[in-house]
Amino acid sequence: MRPAVERRGHVAAPGIAAGPVVRLDRTGGLRREPSGDPARERADLEAAIASSIVAIADLAATLEGEAADILDFQIAMLEDDALSSSAFAAIAKGVDAGTAWSDAIQVQVADYEATADEYFRARAADLADIRDRVLRALAHDGDTATPPGAVLAGNDVTPSRFLSVDWASGGGLALFAGSASSHVAMLARSRGVPMVVGTGPIDLGDNDIAIVDGEAGRIVLNPGAEDWAAYEATRADTVARSGREDAVLRLPARTRDGRRLSVMINVAEPEELDALDPTTCDGIGLVRTEFLFHRPQGLPDEETQYRAYRRIVEWAAGRPNVLRTLDAGGDKPVPGLTIDDESNPFLGTRGIRLSLACPDVFMVQLRAMARAAALGDVKVMLPMVTVPQEIDQAAALLNRAVADLEAEGVACRRPALGIMVEVPAVAIEPALYANADFFSIGSNDLTQYVTASARDIAAVSTLNDAGHPAILSLIRRVVDVGREIGRDVSLCGDMGSDPAHIPALVGAGLATLSVAPPLVGRTKLAIAETGAEAS
Amino acid sequence: MRPAVERRGHVAAPGIAAGPVVRLDRTGGLRREPSGDPARERADLEAAIASSIVAIADLAATLEGEAADILDFQIAMLEDDALSSSAFAAIAKGVDAGTAWSDAIQVQVADYEATADEYFRARAADLADIRDRVLRALAHDGDTATPPGAVLAGNDVTPSRFLSVDWASGGGLALFAGSASSHVAMLARSRGVPMVVGTGPIDLGDNDIAIVDGEAGRIVLNPGAEDWAAYEATRADTVARSGREDAVLRLPARTRDGRRLSVMINVAEPEELDALDPTTCDGIGLVRTEFLFHRPQGLPDEETQYRAYRRIVEWAAGRPNVLRTLDAGGDKPVPGLTIDDESNPFLGTRGIRLSLACPDVFMVQLRAMARAAALGDVKVMLPMVTVPQEIDQAAALLNRAVADLEAEGVACRRPALGIMVEVPAVAIEPALYANADFFSIGSNDLTQYVTASARDIAAVSTLNDAGHPAILSLIRRVVDVGREIGRDVSLCGDMGSDPAHIPALVGAGLATLSVAPPLVGRTKLAIAETGAEAS
Repeated sequence: MRPAVERRGHVAAPGIAAGPVVRLDRTGGLRREPSGDPARERADLEAAIASSIVAIADLAATLEGEAADILDFQIAMLEDDALSSSAFAAIAKGVDAGTAWSDAIQVQVADYEATADEYFRARAADLADIRDRVLRALAHDGDTATPPGAVLAGNDVTPSRFLSVDWASGGGLALFAGSASSHVAMLARSRGVPMVVGTGPIDLGDNDIAIVDGEAGRIVLNPGAEDWAAYEATRADTVARSGREDAVLRLPARTRDGRRLSVMINVAEPEELDALDPTTCDGIGLVRTEFLFHRPQGLPDEETQYRAYRRIVEWAAGRPNVLRTLDAGGDKPVPGLTIDDESNPFLGTRGIRLSLACPDVFMVQLRAMARAAALGDVKVMLPMVTVPQEIDQAAALLNRAVADLEAEGVACRRPALGIMVEVPAVAIEPALYANADFFSIGSNDLTQYVTASARDIAAVSTLNDAGHPAILSLIRRVVDVGREIGRDVSLCGDMGSDPAHIPALVGAGLATLSVAPPLVGRTKLAIAETGAEAS
Repeated sequence: MRPAVERRGHVAAPGIAAGPVVRLDRTGGLRREPSGDPARERADLEAAIASSIVAIADLAATLEGEAADILDFQIAMLEDDALSSSAFAAIAKGVDAGTAWSDAIQVQVADYEATADEYFRARAADLADIRDRVLRALAHDGDTATPPGAVLAGNDVTPSRFLSVDWASGGGLALFAGSASSHVAMLARSRGVPMVVGTGPIDLGDNDIAIVDGEAGRIVLNPGAEDWAAYEATRADTVARSGREDAVLRLPARTRDGRRLSVMINVAEPEELDALDPTTCDGIGLVRTEFLFHRPQGLPDEETQYRAYRRIVEWAAGRPNVLRTLDAGGDKPVPGLTIDDESNPFLGTRGIRLSLACPDVFMVQLRAMARAAALGDVKVMLPMVTVPQEIDQAAALLNRAVADLEAEGVACRRPALGIMVEVPAVAIEPALYANADFFSIGSNDLTQYVTASARDIAAVSTLNDAGHPAILSLIRRVVDVGREIGRDVSLCGDMGSDPAHIPALVGAGLATLSVAPPLVGRTKLAIAETGAEAS
């Protein structure tokens, strides 16, 4: 065992875990000894591909939604003859199975990486996953799965690799680069997997043990006795807090001095709701409707959207539902809809900008939302509003959708129309946007614009800090102006579930926080621990 | 002549011009009739290349700085045997000269466009220029130059094409897409060429005449009698204003009620100063030191930088000089220094973030600046500051540079250290940055972050509007806080030379505006026309 090393990084997902280090991005050790016999090489590769398909299918069967889609794609690639036949051809010429397979995949990875389409570039990471899985099977690395409780460490990690691990038995993530705002970080937070990013490169040995301290934002490699004692204390503390969180989960959120707040949830996939008890929250503060636009069948028609919204409204059982119109663009491309190759997608054609540029697509969504509004307490929210005219234009389209539906005799209702407050201009002069029915502060995007630091660039992740006093200053301003002009103000970014920020948010006068479903208990507990000093 | 058509766009450069339309992006009409004789095809292509080299060299001889560099690159490409020999080889196989040349260039264009390096991608546009110039020469389109006074119209235009036109006899630019913040727009403003962008696609005929109205932001195609009357009136007005601008150019800037303002200049290339009279301005409010980092020889050493700064300080003859440290990154890559492939470069590792990440490179610049500070009134300014700690870190490095120089016995002085106010966080909470000696508001970047709309994405150019009330609100705040804590506040973005914004800026209490050198007269005139109502 090598001496203990502590490296500081940033919290991407809270909690604490310890376990054997499994190195990411590692393929060098996966090569097996070639047999020298082309027939044997071919048979081994066929067996490795077949066993990989079975392993992925087993895993996919336990998952739903985007996670399952990613694995289905991997299976489809493994079943694609084009890929294996080029490897078999190389084997026939005397190349060993591992090299033949790596080379065949590499050609595809290069093709995918060369496209301008973000979607296909992201698939390149899935191909690398497939490559390594088959190489591990070839090397008779029988245990192709990550061992239970392991700490994955390396430069960065793909969502599919994250999803291939069974996190139920513990474990965590330590990334040299990475970002607390990445897709994997969101997955880790929602599944309770401790994750620390931005540690800088760490020289890892073969039998290292690591503690991932997602409370303090550090990792300890090969911990000594004191480190283990601290680990146990933090862990006990986390477990105790988790018990207290469970205790408040089903209660209304109240500050120590009795002020009642609403804690609502952000929903990215309707499947998330299946395992949730609606009585633990005060409603759905944000439905990210992007999930409807990432299906292989293409853009969703009105009926498909309506059914999805209906399912959500029915789940909420009378509680409020805030449906956000499509927030594509930025880091969320939709093939055939968003604009490829913008120089700075976060500062480009995204959110309401895209919807107003594609009114035909927008109208389908507004019609489906107006129909869902007939079923319960439904509000519609516009992302990325920058000028008041955008609200007027969207309101005119919404009114037209309602008028058309009424003329067609279709049940509908004109929902309230509010906006995300995430473009700094809106937070600086909220009174100009009184043509919106309500405001919801999107602290993640607001932070990235106010600090001019992208959520997905690790090098500026320290600057991308919702704790900058300018952010709280803007939040106060929006709450104050909202009170003056009679508009409800809520907050639906990551700040809202962060105990470090909750006292200040409560103090600023926010009465509604909308958070990731697994963080409702943590949010309610932090509110309960907030006293009069915050007001 | 077809009927008159008016199309509205956005002002990219003021002024008004009229002339025959020359279509950009047009190569279809440039093909000549092939002779069918390979020897003749080769001779014609050789002649076309040779005459193109002469034409570009003639043009390059009249230019300096970056403009001349672009043309030198084109000449080098045309003289490169690799390019012509692949065309000659195709001709030998029976391909006609025009096709052979286009194909040979296209291979190179594709190579350049495939690289991740912005610099090389930009060179692809230069290659397309070369292609068209030789094709025009091949087609015996004797007049390969744009006719004097023409209006260039099309989707977009490269800087090199802009520079290949003799604008002295008038003419203008009408772009269907384009952006008022592009490089060409800056060139057009500095050379007084009227330019309108974002008109949307216009169906152009072969003998169209157009008015480019860079005052109202519109173009009129095939103007009628009334259009011509309005053109003459606007033109007369522009000429008269130009006379009034000349009249105030050598006077101190004063509002109608006698308030004295400083009007300083922004310098991007020291060569700009050669034709300027320093007595027309109150000093240099911004030296963009990026010009030092775009030389083919690589990064500049201390002596090279010192000489460049000395030349500037000597020109200023006792007036203040604000040297900005390297603002690379964003849309200003420096090969070997900036980070390629950031998802959103404007929200990434740029300005002071890059300098602090590369302290060795930064120290060379700080030493050169501290040496220049011994020669006159020199201040140092940091771009893209986001948190106060960045100022502390830069100050520590500057102090070390001064201590080192003193220890080495090299003449130097510790200059004042100020910051650009362009990241919204700074403008929202300026009091946190009292560790800076002065503030200079960078309205262009501030606008792009406050409106979350990139300067270089045409689709959001309407949203990228310095006239949004949030911008003026932040400017007022910075001026007020600056007064409270005793820090000078100036402004060095495009707003400062825009007569539409100047009364509000004066009203906000700004006492110093730093503007493009050709706009000093316009700025002083707009100040002179601003009365007490603004205060």
